[in-house]
Amino acid sequence: MICEKMVGLVKGSSAIRAMFEEGRKMAKIYGEENVYDFSLGNPNVAPPNAVAESVEDLIRNEDPMHLHGYMSNTGFESTRKAVADSLNKRFHTHYGPENVIMTVGAASGLNVVFRSLLNPGDEVITFAPFFAEYRNYVANYDGVLVEISPDTETFQPKLDEFAAKITARTRCVLVNSPNNPTGVVYSAQTYRKMAEILNEKQKEFGTQIYLVTDEPYRELVYGDVEVPFVPDFYQNTIVGYSFSKSLSLPGERIGYLVIPSEVDDYEEVYAAMGVANRILGYVNAPSMFQLVVERCLEETTDLSYYEQNRNTLYDGLTKLGFTCIKPDGAFYLFMKSPIADEKAFCETAKKHHILIVPGSGFGCPGYVRIAYCVSYETIINSLPAFEKLAAETL
Amino acid sequence: MICEKMVGLVKGSSAIRAMFEEGRKMAKIYGEENVYDFSLGNPNVAPPNAVAESVEDLIRNEDPMHLHGYMSNTGFESTRKAVADSLNKRFHTHYGPENVIMTVGAASGLNVVFRSLLNPGDEVITFAPFFAEYRNYVANYDGVLVEISPDTETFQPKLDEFAAKITARTRCVLVNSPNNPTGVVYSAQTYRKMAEILNEKQKEFGTQIYLVTDEPYRELVYGDVEVPFVPDFYQNTIVGYSFSKSLSLPGERIGYLVIPSEVDDYEEVYAAMGVANRILGYVNAPSMFQLVVERCLEETTDLSYYEQNRNTLYDGLTKLGFTCIKPDGAFYLFMKSPIADEKAFCETAKKHHILIVPGSGFGCPGYVRIAYCVSYETIINSLPAFEKLAAETL
Repeated sequence: MICEKMVGLVKGSSAIRAMFEEGRKMAKIYGEENVYDFSLGNPNVAPPNAVAESVEDLIRNEDPMHLHGYMSNTGFESTRKAVADSLNKRFHTHYGPENVIMTVGAASGLNVVFRSLLNPGDEVITFAPFFAEYRNYVANYDGVLVEISPDTETFQPKLDEFAAKITARTRCVLVNSPNNPTGVVYSAQTYRKMAEILNEKQKEFGTQIYLVTDEPYRELVYGDVEVPFVPDFYQNTIVGYSFSKSLSLPGERIGYLVIPSEVDDYEEVYAAMGVANRILGYVNAPSMFQLVVERCLEETTDLSYYEQNRNTLYDGLTKLGFTCIKPDGAFYLFMKSPIADEKAFCETAKKHHILIVPGSGFGCPGYVRIAYCVSYETIINSLPAFEKLAAETL
Repeated sequence: MICEKMVGLVKGSSAIRAMFEEGRKMAKIYGEENVYDFSLGNPNVAPPNAVAESVEDLIRNEDPMHLHGYMSNTGFESTRKAVADSLNKRFHTHYGPENVIMTVGAASGLNVVFRSLLNPGDEVITFAPFFAEYRNYVANYDGVLVEISPDTETFQPKLDEFAAKITARTRCVLVNSPNNPTGVVYSAQTYRKMAEILNEKQKEFGTQIYLVTDEPYRELVYGDVEVPFVPDFYQNTIVGYSFSKSLSLPGERIGYLVIPSEVDDYEEVYAAMGVANRILGYVNAPSMFQLVVERCLEETTDLSYYEQNRNTLYDGLTKLGFTCIKPDGAFYLFMKSPIADEKAFCETAKKHHILIVPGSGFGCPGYVRIAYCVSYETIINSLPAFEKLAAETL
């Protein structure tokens, strides 16, 4: 008999699995090339060559006891130093290895943060639409996720509602930019105002409120868009990063946290996060891939591929009359459902062999997420199907 | 400000860190070769060659999108099938990939089990001496760890006390054999009686009690000792395994759980553990090392090295008059402290440059753990220091 907390989660998970299996079934019936599966955020561009080169070099030349061995729970010092140096170069910061913790992807980083900071009943504020797993990461530590409703004009955080919902129990604010599912990059202006509000509220309640960033898409931006570096705006910022998308290594589970020396109670917070990394059973980020990313910090996967997908899909969909904000980053497009019930719209899309995800799961009903990390051919081939969908629903 | 749960943990962790740093300091003062550090359970024998060969082959010949990509949260089907096949061959079982979940080492596997099964207040029984981290893994889910006192004659579980301490809230029993810190292998007789008791108690209370094994040392046994395969004895057994010691890959974080189809509510339990693997932020076991262990299931590191260390150290210490049980497996020796306060004994040992760990942390005061996963030279060179320690304390 499983525990009560898991019962609902298993049901929800079966629903997603059912959808995935329906897609597989459709591919069998209609042929792989005639099913347009935009449901998963799984990178489809190969890692840069430097990844394989680093693996080969390490396996041949590094002492295997070092390469595959235990190190401090926070990670290899050389890797933490390299991450700090790279951030310092890009963002003019002054981090050292003592500000970095290597983690099992960003998902584990967020769990480490919440395990370290949340007492039961503490509140974590996030902005809809948001990555559905945040609900679970906060619930794991009996925290309460407080959702700010979406601004569907700009998909920037609604800061009035934010200010109103901060309480004495607000311990963290969680932001994800470039955003999954909208592709929107939160602006410097947004962070400036957010920091003002947070500083006021910290004073008002006599509390510390940590702004936690989830940035697996930091490197995935198009054109001359710049992603603001959040610690520049607010002192109590903790950065969560993953190499899953930038190096196309989602299965390897490698990322990091940055805990700047400027955050309140830095020493206690850093120590707690090292311990949390251990007791949650991660123990440490995978050792070989720590050393791989140490050598690939200046690399990214081929972003022009995603950019071409974005442009073609965005142009195609808007020409057909669909409404969506042009994403500046990540590999998602968040489209308004032409009919109020977006789940019904997703069902209709399925009739045209298009698999997309309802916005309700992201806290934003009435919209759908289209993950364009697919082959360019899929984009091209899907447009006539979208045309039929438009004719039926617009 | 960190959360209340973490405050004590950070303090405890600082104590261990202080010990480690003192060791480093001693090495600087007296020279690395004059400090006998038996404090850490870190493999010191290289992985078998097949590991590096598999990495090289995979990085050259496997599609990188498969090699580094997401898969089901339970792991690659090919890996799960290979693990199942290997177990079937060794233990005459009938497992399939649907009975295996690949995990981020055994530590994450145990967290997945407890996240899936424990309601707050549920009890997990374990037998002293035990790995200190069990306290944290159970506390993570607000479970209660119930300790059975040690039988210091044999270091087999005390089954009378065990039977008396099972209650309606007992959800899991956690066993670790070959055992850290004693090196003792629990006998078939132990498991037979344990299963009898568990079956009776399940009937008495109308509950399901899962026997959870933590077996990172399963392959590390010496002479003709055999490690009983626990699912042979008790239906509701869940097996936790890690490749950290058998393949000397502790930093890579790779292991598995076996959930036999015979366990009560198998489908629900397997599904919950897949979801737990995801929501706890592991997402999946590191992808490349799943494929590496898939190819190295019949391999082990060079066990004769550990066996030689065991024999030399055991013979040396007992000749000096120290008392300890001869370990059949793992790479630990659990020695009786000649003075009642074993922490004081560890302090005295330090004067002779010997670093060993007090048994209190393992729930067994009056004893010390000596981790002999060190160079053979360290064993040899340490014996005169142990002689002085004997002269001072015996």
